[in-house]
Amino acid sequence: MSNESPLRIGLLLFPGFQALDVFGPIDCLNILSRTHPLTLSILSHTLDPVSTKPPLTPTALAQSVVPTHTFANAPELDVLLIPGGLGIRLLHSEAITSAVDFIRYVYPSLKHLITVCTGSGLVARAGVLDGRRATTNKRAFVEVTGWRGEVDWVARARWVVDGNIWTSSGVSAGIDVMLAWIGNVYGEGVAKEIADIMEYRQVEDGGDDPFAELYGLR
Amino acid sequence: MSNESPLRIGLLLFPGFQALDVFGPIDCLNILSRTHPLTLSILSHTLDPVSTKPPLTPTALAQSVVPTHTFANAPELDVLLIPGGLGIRLLHSEAITSAVDFIRYVYPSLKHLITVCTGSGLVARAGVLDGRRATTNKRAFVEVTGWRGEVDWVARARWVVDGNIWTSSGVSAGIDVMLAWIGNVYGEGVAKEIADIMEYRQVEDGGDDPFAELYGLR
Repeated sequence: MSNESPLRIGLLLFPGFQALDVFGPIDCLNILSRTHPLTLSILSHTLDPVSTKPPLTPTALAQSVVPTHTFANAPELDVLLIPGGLGIRLLHSEAITSAVDFIRYVYPSLKHLITVCTGSGLVARAGVLDGRRATTNKRAFVEVTGWRGEVDWVARARWVVDGNIWTSSGVSAGIDVMLAWIGNVYGEGVAKEIADIMEYRQVEDGGDDPFAELYGLR
Repeated sequence: MSNESPLRIGLLLFPGFQALDVFGPIDCLNILSRTHPLTLSILSHTLDPVSTKPPLTPTALAQSVVPTHTFANAPELDVLLIPGGLGIRLLHSEAITSAVDFIRYVYPSLKHLITVCTGSGLVARAGVLDGRRATTNKRAFVEVTGWRGEVDWVARARWVVDGNIWTSSGVSAGIDVMLAWIGNVYGEGVAKEIADIMEYRQVEDGGDDPFAELYGLR
C-alpha cells in the first residue's frame, strides 16, 4: 500500500456497544498512526454521544464516545470497523436499522470491512455476508447466526477472512483480528511491533479458539 | 465484601493516556457492574475532555474522554485506577504534577489502588510506592524506574501486589491485573466469568511475563 495518502478508517457506533470491542482495535490503530498516516471518522445515527450502557441495565457503568459524523453525512472511507455489544439486540431501533442500512450502502466503496463480536450480525443483516464465511461472539453465537441463515457461519474461529471482510469472535478477539489485518496490509513486522508495545500475546492463528468449545459449539 | 453499597471507583486521566490502559480494565468493570453495584468517577485536572493524543505526534489518531470531576472536587473513592501513556512524560505539566499531588493526598483514604503501564510511575513520584514492590511498562522500564529509586521495582511480572497497591505491566496487562483484583475481591468465579464473556485468555500467574526478556530486562 502507499504511504502517501492516509487510510481513511470509519468506526460505526450504536448505543450499548461494548467498550473493549472498540478500544482494543482502535488502540492498535492509535499506535499504528504514530508511524503510518490514518484518519478516523466516528459514525452513528446522530451526533449525540454514544453510550456503552447496555439495554435494561440502568445501573451498569457506562462511558460515552462522541461521533464525528452521522451515517447521512459520512465521508469517504477505506475501512469500516464495526463493534458488537448488547445494544445490537435492539434490532428495530433507529440506531440499529440505520446502521444496517449504512453498511449495505457503504460496503461496495470500502477496501476492507472489519467486525468485532456481534458486529458481524449487523453486516449479516445488511445481506453483505450472504454466501460468505464469517464468525461472531461465541456466547451469542446461536442468537446472532439465527439472524441470517444465508451466511456460512464458522463456530470455531478467533477470526475469519473472506474476501475483504474480516470478522472476529467476541470482545478481546477484536485485538487479534486488527493485528492480523495490520499484518496483512502493513506487514507482519508492523503488527508484531504493535503487539509488543501493547505487551499483548497475539493469537496468531485465526482458528485457535477455545471459546467455541466453552460455549458448547461444534 | 458487602453487596449493599456500591464500590466507588475513580479513574485518573491525563492528556496522552493510552486508550487500552483505560478501556481494558474499565470494560472488566462495566461487565462486573451488570451484577455488582459500582460507581465510576472520571477525574482529571480540569473538566475539559482528555485526549489520548501523545505529545509531539500531531497526526496520531486520538479519542477523548470527558471527566466527571476535577482532582479538586473528587468524591470519596474506594478504588483508584491509574493508566499510563506517553503523556505521562510531560513531568512538569500541570496535568501530571496535579495528578501526582492528588495521588499523594487521596491514597490514605483508598481501599485499593490499581495501576496500568507507566501509571505506576505517577504513584512512585507521589512517594506512595517507597519501600514497596511494584512493576511498570517493560519497554519504558528503565525510564520509569529511574523516576524513583526508593521503590522495589520488579522487572519480570505481569502484575505485582504489595499491600493494597496493584501495579501492572504495559497496556494489555491492565486487563489481567483487573481480573486478578476482581478475583481477589469478588471471587475467582466472578473474574473467570468476565474473562469468558470477553473471550479473553487471562494471564493467571502474575509472574508470567515474556516481555521483560523481550525488552532486555533481568
